[in-house]
Amino acid sequence: MHSIKDLQDFFSKELKNLKLNNEPNKLNAPIEYILEIGGKRVRPVLVLSACEMFGGVLMDAFKPAMAIEVFHNFTLMHDDIMDEAPLRRGKKTVHTLYDINTAILSGDVMLIYAYQLLEDLEGELFKKIFRIFNKTAVKVCEGQRLDLNFETMENVSIDEYIRMIEYKTAVLLGCSLEVGAYLGGADDSDAKNMYEFGRNLGIAFQIQDDILDVFGDENNFGKKIGGDIIQNKKTFLLLKSFELSGPEERKELDYWIAKNGADNEKKISSVTSIFEKLGVNKEAELSKKYYMEKALYHLDKVSSEATRKNILIEISDMLLNRVN
Amino acid sequence: MHSIKDLQDFFSKELKNLKLNNEPNKLNAPIEYILEIGGKRVRPVLVLSACEMFGGVLMDAFKPAMAIEVFHNFTLMHDDIMDEAPLRRGKKTVHTLYDINTAILSGDVMLIYAYQLLEDLEGELFKKIFRIFNKTAVKVCEGQRLDLNFETMENVSIDEYIRMIEYKTAVLLGCSLEVGAYLGGADDSDAKNMYEFGRNLGIAFQIQDDILDVFGDENNFGKKIGGDIIQNKKTFLLLKSFELSGPEERKELDYWIAKNGADNEKKISSVTSIFEKLGVNKEAELSKKYYMEKALYHLDKVSSEATRKNILIEISDMLLNRVN
Repeated sequence: MHSIKDLQDFFSKELKNLKLNNEPNKLNAPIEYILEIGGKRVRPVLVLSACEMFGGVLMDAFKPAMAIEVFHNFTLMHDDIMDEAPLRRGKKTVHTLYDINTAILSGDVMLIYAYQLLEDLEGELFKKIFRIFNKTAVKVCEGQRLDLNFETMENVSIDEYIRMIEYKTAVLLGCSLEVGAYLGGADDSDAKNMYEFGRNLGIAFQIQDDILDVFGDENNFGKKIGGDIIQNKKTFLLLKSFELSGPEERKELDYWIAKNGADNEKKISSVTSIFEKLGVNKEAELSKKYYMEKALYHLDKVSSEATRKNILIEISDMLLNRVN
Repeated sequence: MHSIKDLQDFFSKELKNLKLNNEPNKLNAPIEYILEIGGKRVRPVLVLSACEMFGGVLMDAFKPAMAIEVFHNFTLMHDDIMDEAPLRRGKKTVHTLYDINTAILSGDVMLIYAYQLLEDLEGELFKKIFRIFNKTAVKVCEGQRLDLNFETMENVSIDEYIRMIEYKTAVLLGCSLEVGAYLGGADDSDAKNMYEFGRNLGIAFQIQDDILDVFGDENNFGKKIGGDIIQNKKTFLLLKSFELSGPEERKELDYWIAKNGADNEKKISSVTSIFEKLGVNKEAELSKKYYMEKALYHLDKVSSEATRKNILIEISDMLLNRVN
């Protein structure tokens, strides 16, 4: 089996060779742009490693892996419009570099390209992967809808929050592993456990992301610490604080939430102190651990040899002790 | 074989019974809204009638017909954002009734639903229809891209214009007939001719639309006459006028194009006079006739009995002598 680094490199090479469409197509430049911004290619690496884990051939998995990466980047392109995000990974977002209409339309065509990348699959495998892909794609959109709704909702429960991150992020990690498993020849039971491993890993990863945004090391985290606090983002930490706070702390939280723009450093340190006082960081760690244990429970049930599962443990480590 | 009216009614009934998703999904209300605004259901009727024409069973064609109708309405929802259109068929557009983010996201999910509606297809038929659908969908997006580009382009040739309406509208009519033909059991040659019939019919239909917007009967046309002129829309008529005008007429055209807002009635009558003087309405009629003849040439080559083709002639008449 190949290493994470190998798989990332193989995938990047294949992606570079990808001809998006035979005809010269004016929608492709923004698509190539967002795909080049890159990232760690977590989803394709999951597809490829799951495929290898069950003895499959990498060549069969590149196009489906690309389908999932293209789909993922389609969601980023549209999410950035909705979130009015000027930057992604330090580069201008597509609607900023071009315009909103271009980002809508190039995103649309990316979603179609993702499907087109499944065209070479055959028979029952094609049907299975097509259904998984559709089901997951609807959930990812629903996750973004929930995330947008949260902005204007007064009360969001932790359960609702988990549901949102599950849909918006985790199901696509699960889908990547399930698709990879089927491509490698896994049976339904193994494929389902691979999905559950990925889904729970994804939830743990998102909770981790919330923790790092406040308690991370700026040099390792890659972004400025406290961004979520400044934006009053309804993260696990903030929602748990609402749950656990008495009238005193709630008043203080509300005071800082109402404060916009000025005194950001003071806002970050004050809200962080409340988090620590209430122990929500520990609650978040506990919750992350819970989902990670669930993930490993499902991985354990997968019938492959333990050594073949090592790469997934490595990927989990990469995600959960992530440097950026 | 059933009548157009029957097929419209059957389809509307099926559409009403359609459960978009098992889970309660907040993205569905805008989708149900745009699907209910309705219209003549031209594309599904084309799928159904093509299926019947080759001896197929209607029940097999409803879901693929719905896939194409849902896809079509996804493009309308996103096009309306890009065109900043406040109304569609006299009702508020989705981004006006809700907001832009909802229209982006519900549109995205509609595109996925369209694919989901193909899930019940089997084997080679599934693969064929999936490929046709993907190829067509990319073209439709490219057509919208061209249309948006035209707004800021100085020179658009008639060829470029035809390419735009071909992609934006005509290929989906062709796709509807090709998909319907395959569902009914047609061979590749018949399916291809059905596609070409629909594609050419679609081009003729769009040219007709340009003519009616200026020279139509307001009571029959359903919208106010002259809307394209007021908006300086680069229609067949205007582009042909640029081609045929001498310096005098071009100066007059440019004068009216520069004039925005005030004196709309005078603008409409003046530009219409130039159109008539240059004879571009006759050129448009000729071009429309050319594409309609090409359409009929391909329909003629389809191996079915002539009487089975009557419904397609009726649909053409409905579209080309359209009341609205």
